[in-house]
Amino acid sequence: MRLHVANPNSDAGMTRTIAAAAEAIAAPGTSIIATRSRTGPASIEGYHDGALAVSDLLARVADTSADAHIVACFDDTGLDAARCATSVPVVGIGEAACLIATQLAERYVVVTSAAVSIPVIEANLRRSGLATRCAGVHAAGVPVLDIAQGAGGPDDPVAAAVRRAAAEIPGAAIVLGCAGMADLAGALTKELDRPVVDGVAAAVTIAEGVVRLGLRTVKGGGYGARSSRQTLG
Amino acid sequence: MRLHVANPNSDAGMTRTIAAAAEAIAAPGTSIIATRSRTGPASIEGYHDGALAVSDLLARVADTSADAHIVACFDDTGLDAARCATSVPVVGIGEAACLIATQLAERYVVVTSAAVSIPVIEANLRRSGLATRCAGVHAAGVPVLDIAQGAGGPDDPVAAAVRRAAAEIPGAAIVLGCAGMADLAGALTKELDRPVVDGVAAAVTIAEGVVRLGLRTVKGGGYGARSSRQTLG
Amino acid sequence: MRLHVANPNSDAGMTRTIAAAAEAIAAPGTSIIATRSRTGPASIEGYHDGALAVSDLLARVADTSADAHIVACFDDTGLDAARCATSVPVVGIGEAACLIATQLAERYVVVTSAAVSIPVIEANLRRSGLATRCAGVHAAGVPVLDIAQGAGGPDDPVAAAVRRAAAEIPGAAIVLGCAGMADLAGALTKELDRPVVDGVAAAVTIAEGVVRLGLRTVKGGGYGARSSRQTLG
Amino acid sequence: MRLHVANPNSDAGMTRTIAAAAEAIAAPGTSIIATRSRTGPASIEGYHDGALAVSDLLARVADTSADAHIVACFDDTGLDAARCATSVPVVGIGEAACLIATQLAERYVVVTSAAVSIPVIEANLRRSGLATRCAGVHAAGVPVLDIAQGAGGPDDPVAAAVRRAAAEIPGAAIVLGCAGMADLAGALTKELDRPVVDGVAAAVTIAEGVVRLGLRTVKGGGYGARSSRQTLG
Amino acid sequence: MRLHVANPNSDAGMTRTIAAAAEAIAAPGTSIIATRSRTGPASIEGYHDGALAVSDLLARVADTSADAHIVACFDDTGLDAARCATSVPVVGIGEAACLIATQLAERYVVVTSAAVSIPVIEANLRRSGLATRCAGVHAAGVPVLDIAQGAGGPDDPVAAAVRRAAAEIPGAAIVLGCAGMADLAGALTKELDRPVVDGVAAAVTIAEGVVRLGLRTVKGGGYGARSSRQTLG
Amino acid sequence: MRLHVANPNSDAGMTRTIAAAAEAIAAPGTSIIATRSRTGPASIEGYHDGALAVSDLLARVADTSADAHIVACFDDTGLDAARCATSVPVVGIGEAACLIATQLAERYVVVTSAAVSIPVIEANLRRSGLATRCAGVHAAGVPVLDIAQGAGGPDDPVAAAVRRAAAEIPGAAIVLGCAGMADLAGALTKELDRPVVDGVAAAVTIAEGVVRLGLRTVKGGGYGARSSRQTLG
Repeated sequence: MRLHVANPNSDAGMTRTIAAAAEAIAAPGTSIIATRSRTGPASIEGYHDGALAVSDLLARVADTSADAHIVACFDDTGLDAARCATSVPVVGIGEAACLIATQLAERYVVVTSAAVSIPVIEANLRRSGLATRCAGVHAAGVPVLDIAQGAGGPDDPVAAAVRRAAAEIPGAAIVLGCAGMADLAGALTKELDRPVVDGVAAAVTIAEGVVRLGLRTVKGGGYGARSSRQTLG
Repeated sequence: MRLHVANPNSDAGMTRTIAAAAEAIAAPGTSIIATRSRTGPASIEGYHDGALAVSDLLARVADTSADAHIVACFDDTGLDAARCATSVPVVGIGEAACLIATQLAERYVVVTSAAVSIPVIEANLRRSGLATRCAGVHAAGVPVLDIAQGAGGPDDPVAAAVRRAAAEIPGAAIVLGCAGMADLAGALTKELDRPVVDGVAAAVTIAEGVVRLGLRTVKGGGYGARSSRQTLG
Repeated sequence: MRLHVANPNSDAGMTRTIAAAAEAIAAPGTSIIATRSRTGPASIEGYHDGALAVSDLLARVADTSADAHIVACFDDTGLDAARCATSVPVVGIGEAACLIATQLAERYVVVTSAAVSIPVIEANLRRSGLATRCAGVHAAGVPVLDIAQGAGGPDDPVAAAVRRAAAEIPGAAIVLGCAGMADLAGALTKELDRPVVDGVAAAVTIAEGVVRLGLRTVKGGGYGARSSRQTLG
Repeated sequence: MRLHVANPNSDAGMTRTIAAAAEAIAAPGTSIIATRSRTGPASIEGYHDGALAVSDLLARVADTSADAHIVACFDDTGLDAARCATSVPVVGIGEAACLIATQLAERYVVVTSAAVSIPVIEANLRRSGLATRCAGVHAAGVPVLDIAQGAGGPDDPVAAAVRRAAAEIPGAAIVLGCAGMADLAGALTKELDRPVVDGVAAAVTIAEGVVRLGLRTVKGGGYGARSSRQTLG
Repeated sequence: MRLHVANPNSDAGMTRTIAAAAEAIAAPGTSIIATRSRTGPASIEGYHDGALAVSDLLARVADTSADAHIVACFDDTGLDAARCATSVPVVGIGEAACLIATQLAERYVVVTSAAVSIPVIEANLRRSGLATRCAGVHAAGVPVLDIAQGAGGPDDPVAAAVRRAAAEIPGAAIVLGCAGMADLAGALTKELDRPVVDGVAAAVTIAEGVVRLGLRTVKGGGYGARSSRQTLG
Repeated sequence: MRLHVANPNSDAGMTRTIAAAAEAIAAPGTSIIATRSRTGPASIEGYHDGALAVSDLLARVADTSADAHIVACFDDTGLDAARCATSVPVVGIGEAACLIATQLAERYVVVTSAAVSIPVIEANLRRSGLATRCAGVHAAGVPVLDIAQGAGGPDDPVAAAVRRAAAEIPGAAIVLGCAGMADLAGALTKELDRPVVDGVAAAVTIAEGVVRLGLRTVKGGGYGARSSRQTLG
């Protein structure tokens, strides 16, 4: 099975982190094709970056042969549009992480990078219905690219934000709200004795599952064909 | 006052219709600058077209000097991203039309062009809260570009869909769910003795109002600055 | 264009403040007719005052010739009943202010006068759907008539409450939750670099817009005629 | 125990029907004091009638010595304002009927008199939370005063509407949505083998219960005192 | 009238407390039959205890001749299943207490025993729609059986939690969130000048009301018969 | 990896169908342990059957050594209680099927066996938030045990109900709402060119994913320990 992990941003290091997280969880026989943006922003922080990233992302989804695509930004950049662009499944890491969290706890908290992303994530959760189980979206106050350039160590501010969220909301799972945080999941799960969910890994397991189930994206409703022939320019 | 009416699609005829509708309602002293997409789809039908249209739209918002911008597609394409791109007000015609409808009736029905747009509009209404007052989003089953190329006449299928919606849901205002339908509002309002709201005209009155109130888009929350310097591809 | 600004309460000074705020924003050619209650309470604080104020308000709406009516209490006293009483548009200042706020920020906070009004306002917001974007309704703890008798100065407790709300909720617009607060909007907008919305001014721009759009209140649904002839006494 | 059953309208016949329904269910030792409006509309159909009825209703609540008050219109006219006007419990027949219905079925349907009342009832149900269990509000298309002047017989249109609602929505309780329908509850409960709830009787049992529990209306929040001394005129 | 008060747990002392609370409020002519679990947990704390308690509870409902049944645990253990098991009314003390609270205040707070019960109660409130009026579910941090073994005295931690909730949320009614707290309602109502509602007493008044109204549980929808003959083991 | 597939009912044939569906999708290295109820009802139709089935189900979850448990009834019988009973993941087939459906379409329809199950499923969907994406729960009107005894053939009433749902709601995924329908998914997916999701297979892929992610059920919140030692009988 080929999974296309499409990083909406253009940062090479972050794309390597994402690819490594996907490969680490992938089942035997699953190959990971990771791509990054050729024209988009170096990181996705907020609505504006997301809007600039989506066009290149859609082109990669259309051009990359795969059994399923994964949108590897926690904002699930262009997820609905990507589902229009292909008939194989498309999974977003934000949605995937929260779905997995609901299997393990009644509530979950998202800890994302910068505050500008909070409303984007909240809007996604309300649309999907996953907001019903969400106990809050927190921001670590760390730029995405700083996260990409190396988390870890006792002073890591993302880990500190995760610890605070866990302490504030007992009984909640923790969802890491940025693709660049993948490295933290294992250690924090152990330290906090609480499920700490990384979206990249979560999305790989869900994408593999949907492919094995033999199911494809519906062509109809909002994912159906538009009525007019599109003429560019 | 200068209002920039940005058509997210690239169709010249539809842009003329939109500009004419805006100019017809504009207050004395308001000048309308209408632009159309240079690279985007000829019409916006569904998520995929919207995603392809947004990048050029944002560039025009950033580059066009105006007291307020109007996103002239009923899907409110890229509205949040556009609000990040400028500090003057940005009004979407979908939101504007429904806001005006709530001032005149307890409920309203949207009649849009093609069925693929229904979920996009429903998602927008849920996000803004306007879904609370919405009694349904109907589709006339007509491609956007056909609407742009001339509505009117006794057999016009959009007008027929509006009449059906009005008959089905007594006491509701009707909202025309496509920028290309602007011509129909006046005649149908009279014929049906019911408020029939065109979004372009509605958005002009709201944009003028916000400018006269001396208010600007907040720079903070989801509309705030991203933390990182963006480096393109 | 004639706009009837109907103050549901009977306070002469507050009615002058409201009239001045309406005239300051009105477009050239708009004349403002401000009326106040002949029999109602001197101020509207909570459900009971609102109920006592509504009958005189409806009489003034029915008797005052105008192109649109504005209910000039943030509680939108009797708004639905007023829409039954006339076929020209009726705009409430509470709804108008919050509508304008949603054009400028993803969330807004209301700062009202006394705590007894909070549930009234919250109930209105839930009914209209505007609660979806509301980040809270705060009370300054100041009686309405004290506000009417002169705000301003460095120690003004309403301004202090607005500053606190702005600090607590970054990225939110601020809505002034009492008709008597109109004077504060301009200075606080500048001081806080945040949209601070006065409902009277907001309602004037929306009422003007609806009139220019040539639309009238729907006669049907909850605003339709009752089936029986009404016999008083 | 004295229960004041306050009919918001001024119709003498309907007031007798209401009083009889209350007396029929009242526990031994409960006396019913039924009053009707001196100045209000002959029947309450829609927002405008309700607004005209509320002031006299509040005066009667304030002036009538009782252990609890019942607002005997299915629209629960002025219920919140009445709770401000007294410290003894106030029960509305609309809310009471729906509360009882939720004890007997997962869903209930309301069958009211005229269509103009539907949005009033729906708004009340959304406010109280009871909308969650409501499967629809239907109208029999019969003026309130026609109902008051004698239902019954095989051709009664209200009974016909109840039968249709019961057939359409299996497993639902039926709520009679007008104080004048009290006579129908018993016979239709038997005929349809379904709980058919009359609000007047339901409200009497709830009011008696609250009084026996020794509880009174909270004085605080929206039911608290206003901050200012009220000066009429 | 015979009311069967079914304690889902097996604790004899707590069953006596419940029976006494029911008898204290019961109308003349109402006899209380209190039963306790023969096989279930000694107290109900959370989902797991509730699941273990339900089978014996259903057997008692089926076997006990009564005019109505009361499920005497604030979690409303097995309430829907019990309504399938009988055609007489079944009232849960959690739902009953919150219903009564909504008659006296716009909002209410629940104070329950242990934190593990909070999500159970919140889920019930969302299902019934009563969450709309709920301002929070607090836990006193006291095991159910400690409550059963004697509350009261100046240091009682449940009373302390009630006082804190009342102070935090002005204008709210207080709901005692455990059947074992019945003794506290009277004294705290007086002390706090706020309605403090005990579910057992509330349920008795509602059950008596429903019986007097001559209404029975609907047989249909989710309370209808299953299609298959059930064969155990 | 060992997955325990716990059928809440006692039917041997249906348990074999479930086991076969689980084994057909299981990854290499996953072993399926299927158990059925020793004391519970032969099929689960509605609240009452579900309540009778839960105690034996919890015992099997506690006693069966596994890496994850699957509750193999579409009602997700006792899912929360089962999550209290173990620290390994527990997945319900109802929730799993709907989660997978949301990855493939904006909306989904559930087609279940008998109408008595509809409110149970609707209540589950509201609790999980998945109702946001649900376009309806339909019933085929077929008893569970009839389904278990052999679907298929041109006249199969379940397949007919699935076809009707697909025709009524274009663009929606279809969810098979009963564990006994597993056989139908593949053929209907092909015939209808629409994702038709079987919950048993969906749950296996999700359970495998959660186990591979190394995550366990949170011990806290509603899934935490009760405060008191439980004493039976």
